[in-house]
Amino acid sequence: MAPPLHVAFCGVTEGPWRVERIAAVIGEGLPPAPSLSVIEGDAPAPERSAWVLRGVTGHERYTTAAERTRLRARETPLGRSEATRAALIPIRKSPEWWALAQDERRTIFEERSRHIGIGLEYLPAVARRLHHGRDLGEPFDFLTWFEYPAAASDAFEELVSRLRATAEWRYVDREVDIRLSRSG
Amino acid sequence: MAPPLHVAFCGVTEGPWRVERIAAVIGEGLPPAPSLSVIEGDAPAPERSAWVLRGVTGHERYTTAAERTRLRARETPLGRSEATRAALIPIRKSPEWWALAQDERRTIFEERSRHIGIGLEYLPAVARRLHHGRDLGEPFDFLTWFEYPAAASDAFEELVSRLRATAEWRYVDREVDIRLSRSG
Repeated sequence: MAPPLHVAFCGVTEGPWRVERIAAVIGEGLPPAPSLSVIEGDAPAPERSAWVLRGVTGHERYTTAAERTRLRARETPLGRSEATRAALIPIRKSPEWWALAQDERRTIFEERSRHIGIGLEYLPAVARRLHHGRDLGEPFDFLTWFEYPAAASDAFEELVSRLRATAEWRYVDREVDIRLSRSG
Repeated sequence: MAPPLHVAFCGVTEGPWRVERIAAVIGEGLPPAPSLSVIEGDAPAPERSAWVLRGVTGHERYTTAAERTRLRARETPLGRSEATRAALIPIRKSPEWWALAQDERRTIFEERSRHIGIGLEYLPAVARRLHHGRDLGEPFDFLTWFEYPAAASDAFEELVSRLRATAEWRYVDREVDIRLSRSG
């Protein structure tokens, strides 16, 4: 389906992804749920979801054409059979972040924090899809979904720690970290 | 209310803005409606609306800090009593536009088309608020709302014509132009 693709991440009793842990990294966490379902497009979220987080994919907000060429050369799709681990990391950024102009946000995002550059180092092992929730009135501004093979677990931890140490992350005022593995 | 502010523009029988004309500029138009109501926040749209166009305000997508300083020094708020004319211009941009990277879109938007620079020339007479609809799954990507005094009508026509002549406008694949005046 062409973007923008609406996606609902649902905390459910039974689903294709088993929840290994839900950690509140910054601010309020999320209630526990045994499994996660990812619903794309217009299909309704399961009725008895413990929580539903919504976002929408779309055009790139900061990536330049040159950066995109480097990303496209290395990135891998979602749904690889060897990618048995996943993470959903919902974050909200502060009012100070959203009050910055585009060039100021870009400078913090890449020139100072190397968000794209760091991510590139973990391709092709870690596949990634970003969903925007801010315009939908959702509690989180961004939902990033990652899929990776078990062998890349240490690399993934490193990626997450490096991003959390950046100047950009000082503008994150809520972050939850949900780790998953494929059910069955 | 702090952004993002959800706004619904409703074609209604009676409302605070009288519709003077609805023109299909590019692609499909909109059905006629005698009046327009602007509903902000969570209030429901009037039940018998001929159409409802939704968008959300928010952070700046292209404006640099320097440009913003120049804008803020000249811009005027909505709701001035002398601003008896208004325009609602819903536009959709093509898939080609959305496939461009951020720096490519910025170059077309400002360095080639001077979208911000042209707009600045018509401040403070023409007040403006932009609403984004793309992530909401709306038929239009942008709803721009303008308010101006009757004396600025010719200037407003010039502003609209100059923007339509830009390189950026080649990426517009649907545009409707709704002109209004304050009722009663």
